[in-house]
Amino acid sequence: MPSTPRTLDLASFIVDRSLDEPLHLQIYHGVRDSILNGRLAPGLRLPSTRTMALSWAISRSTVLAAIDQLKAEGYLEGRAGSGVFVSHTIPDRLNCVKSDRAKSDAVPTGGNPSPQLSNRGSSICDEFRIRREYFDHATPFRPGVPAEGTFPSKRWSRLSTRLWRKFECDPPLVVEPMGYSPLREAIAVHLGATRGVSCDADQIVIVSSTQHALMMLGQILLDSGDSVWIEDPGYLRAQAALAAVGAKVEPIPLDDEGIDLEHALRTAPSAKLCYVTPSHQYPLGITMSLSRRLALLEWSARSRSWIVEDDYMAEYRYAGQPLVSLQGLDEFARVIYLGTFSKTFSPALRLGFIVIPQELISAFNAVRSLIDRCPSFIDQAVLAEFMREGHLGRHVRRMRRVYDERRNCLRHALNSEIPCLDLRPVQSGMHTVAWLPSGSDDCRVARHLAEEGVVTFPLSTMCHRPIAPALILGYAGWNRVQTLQQVRRMERSLRTILSEYCS
Amino acid sequence: MPSTPRTLDLASFIVDRSLDEPLHLQIYHGVRDSILNGRLAPGLRLPSTRTMALSWAISRSTVLAAIDQLKAEGYLEGRAGSGVFVSHTIPDRLNCVKSDRAKSDAVPTGGNPSPQLSNRGSSICDEFRIRREYFDHATPFRPGVPAEGTFPSKRWSRLSTRLWRKFECDPPLVVEPMGYSPLREAIAVHLGATRGVSCDADQIVIVSSTQHALMMLGQILLDSGDSVWIEDPGYLRAQAALAAVGAKVEPIPLDDEGIDLEHALRTAPSAKLCYVTPSHQYPLGITMSLSRRLALLEWSARSRSWIVEDDYMAEYRYAGQPLVSLQGLDEFARVIYLGTFSKTFSPALRLGFIVIPQELISAFNAVRSLIDRCPSFIDQAVLAEFMREGHLGRHVRRMRRVYDERRNCLRHALNSEIPCLDLRPVQSGMHTVAWLPSGSDDCRVARHLAEEGVVTFPLSTMCHRPIAPALILGYAGWNRVQTLQQVRRMERSLRTILSEYCS
Repeated sequence: MPSTPRTLDLASFIVDRSLDEPLHLQIYHGVRDSILNGRLAPGLRLPSTRTMALSWAISRSTVLAAIDQLKAEGYLEGRAGSGVFVSHTIPDRLNCVKSDRAKSDAVPTGGNPSPQLSNRGSSICDEFRIRREYFDHATPFRPGVPAEGTFPSKRWSRLSTRLWRKFECDPPLVVEPMGYSPLREAIAVHLGATRGVSCDADQIVIVSSTQHALMMLGQILLDSGDSVWIEDPGYLRAQAALAAVGAKVEPIPLDDEGIDLEHALRTAPSAKLCYVTPSHQYPLGITMSLSRRLALLEWSARSRSWIVEDDYMAEYRYAGQPLVSLQGLDEFARVIYLGTFSKTFSPALRLGFIVIPQELISAFNAVRSLIDRCPSFIDQAVLAEFMREGHLGRHVRRMRRVYDERRNCLRHALNSEIPCLDLRPVQSGMHTVAWLPSGSDDCRVARHLAEEGVVTFPLSTMCHRPIAPALILGYAGWNRVQTLQQVRRMERSLRTILSEYCS
Repeated sequence: MPSTPRTLDLASFIVDRSLDEPLHLQIYHGVRDSILNGRLAPGLRLPSTRTMALSWAISRSTVLAAIDQLKAEGYLEGRAGSGVFVSHTIPDRLNCVKSDRAKSDAVPTGGNPSPQLSNRGSSICDEFRIRREYFDHATPFRPGVPAEGTFPSKRWSRLSTRLWRKFECDPPLVVEPMGYSPLREAIAVHLGATRGVSCDADQIVIVSSTQHALMMLGQILLDSGDSVWIEDPGYLRAQAALAAVGAKVEPIPLDDEGIDLEHALRTAPSAKLCYVTPSHQYPLGITMSLSRRLALLEWSARSRSWIVEDDYMAEYRYAGQPLVSLQGLDEFARVIYLGTFSKTFSPALRLGFIVIPQELISAFNAVRSLIDRCPSFIDQAVLAEFMREGHLGRHVRRMRRVYDERRNCLRHALNSEIPCLDLRPVQSGMHTVAWLPSGSDDCRVARHLAEEGVVTFPLSTMCHRPIAPALILGYAGWNRVQTLQQVRRMERSLRTILSEYCS
């Protein structure tokens, strides 16, 4: 222990009027710190407030404010008539812990490189470490980036102003667990008309993202260790979300019709849930065939398992209409349908939804009421109004035109500039798959391109079983100029790295 | 199988111009349904599009649109020259499944009362079933309801309009995983000034609620089965969130200084995490003593466990200043600090934050990037601006005045009208604890009151070990008139039910 003065050394104690910190707080902090660092020992008697006030030339009430606060917090204790003392209830132990601190290794220091994470925490970090190089800024051709300047800001702003006025706007005092009713109504109508989804508003649960949806589903439908079928290659974040809730993720290969059901039944016959992207398989863009859809539905009906249909990109289809959803074909209420507005508007909006079977409503209501809530009321209200006024359809049609142009621009540029890339026709979505010459290493290629400022996702990072080398290129976010410029860059750097293939 | 016609019966097939549904969609749905319900068997040949167009007196292009869509979806297949046929790839199995449906019990029907929930899903539902009667509308004295009409709507609306203009407003194309930087900056400054929390903006993680925060913490710091200390009685939703991520929740009793550390060390010595509400224990309102704070910090430093400090109501303190946070006392970076704007503004805003130690930043960044994202950009941007312009302090001071008045109004009314209720002084928060005469049953009393339209939370529903019967009464949401009216109601119905005690 440091030697402790018999009383508070008023001289050493500066109260500075020039500081922003109010005087009573200066005293409060000064005394508190002296107590905590042991300079003022337990039992020590403080000078009278009058003495302190005089010696610091400040009002006594200021001193009293500080002392009262220190008493309230237990640093000081007053004894009737005999003054104010440093509290005895401060364990000396802490001072020891502190003086140990430098040498002690029992006590971690702030900079500890390996914090005590859980196993799942660590595995998420490892997972991320592998991928992080591909989670980059909004640079062509990063997939999933929407077109700049297309967010309907003016209308959004006008609607929100109007809503604030309309409600005067007290947001509701009690949050609706499942989400803002008018938005749920609007979504139910929209889905019926555009996706053949049959549901009532009370089956709609507003969430902030697909990951959020999957975590809720995991809590309600899965126990840790339960098997879940996912598509291989597939949507990384969905897999991570399912793994995070303790599911045993079973990667199932794909064929031309979609997820390979026979293979799935062989490898994990007792799966509790199947996560699929039937309209536009992520990342390959395969549309699940009708027969595969029906077979999957029959499996879920017979095994009483759940199908999670992630219809993340249905609205961006450039040829034919979007295919009808699995949910719309389902007669046995086994399909849980996920949708998002991240692609329709912006990932910054953080709004999506789940369509659940009637029989799950009470469970979702319970989870929502107890351990989760819906996203921001305000955005929900604005989006509801936006949809109610029929702007969504117009917005989607507009985006579809933009993205179709950008898709064609990229395809033509790649075909003419980099013929050694094999592009299969893509009818929908916001990205395309460029197959590399077999034998090449897509991670190496992607890293090489990243160094040149061209961002792509290597397919193999989305595969559990390697299939063939390919790059995922997002086209939605980039205008003609950006696209052509990046394709030229790509061409230059691929010429060196793929010389043995492209010539 | 039902008998299947040799071809599509055009007469029975009505195309109705008076319907809203476009003609091609009527045809599409009609044919699709006939195929799925087996009326049109696989291999069946369809009439020519010309024939159909003629018999329905519509344009051939309309028919073609429908047929093309049905082909695209695999219901129909065209054979060069020989016309269009019902696809063979539709497994008859499904038709069997369907005809089974009525009798089959292997196949659940939509109305199934017991869906296949996970164990954790079921336990959440059971938990909720017990509590649901207390999750009611915004009726006095439901705790946690903010004052109506106090949301700074005009300013909020003005700020959001301005932001939309300023950004033109493209929301950012790539979401910042940890949250909108300017908001994180503003929160760091605010916490330093008001709560003695020492942190940089990069330690702030924006979340939508305390539950959301606890789920993330659970994923990163806990594996299922890990012990966690919680306060008993304590905050139900926090317990539920920790249980939902698989933690073994250990309820620890309280004494006058806060959570009973000795007891905790005896019952669950190897706890990985401790969840506490030191400023204003929920629901009892105890302020954790300094010595208990220091002892808890020492425990976490020595055992390298985590302390989660939920400072949910710090700003609403009516006597003295808010006590300095545990985080501010922590020298070993073991404290994770939770804050929320649900109490400051409205639960509908869905914004809160976590202050994490430096060493956890990369882990949170990984979880955020892979399986979670931050709440809506727009609200974050508006709140950031609101704070940057210094409105938060003013707003809180205003709310504090309102709530202090309401607190006094309720206390005086209860003391004068219902003397058999024992109210301990409450210095902070949005609710008070009314102790019932010992021997009475608080659940029974609460149910009785609920029938009379007076909502209260019985303390025993928040206890693992019964302590004493009491009612939690929220006062924040109710003005003088509402409060006095409800107190009179309370008095009337308690007179009957507590007659043996109050006389």
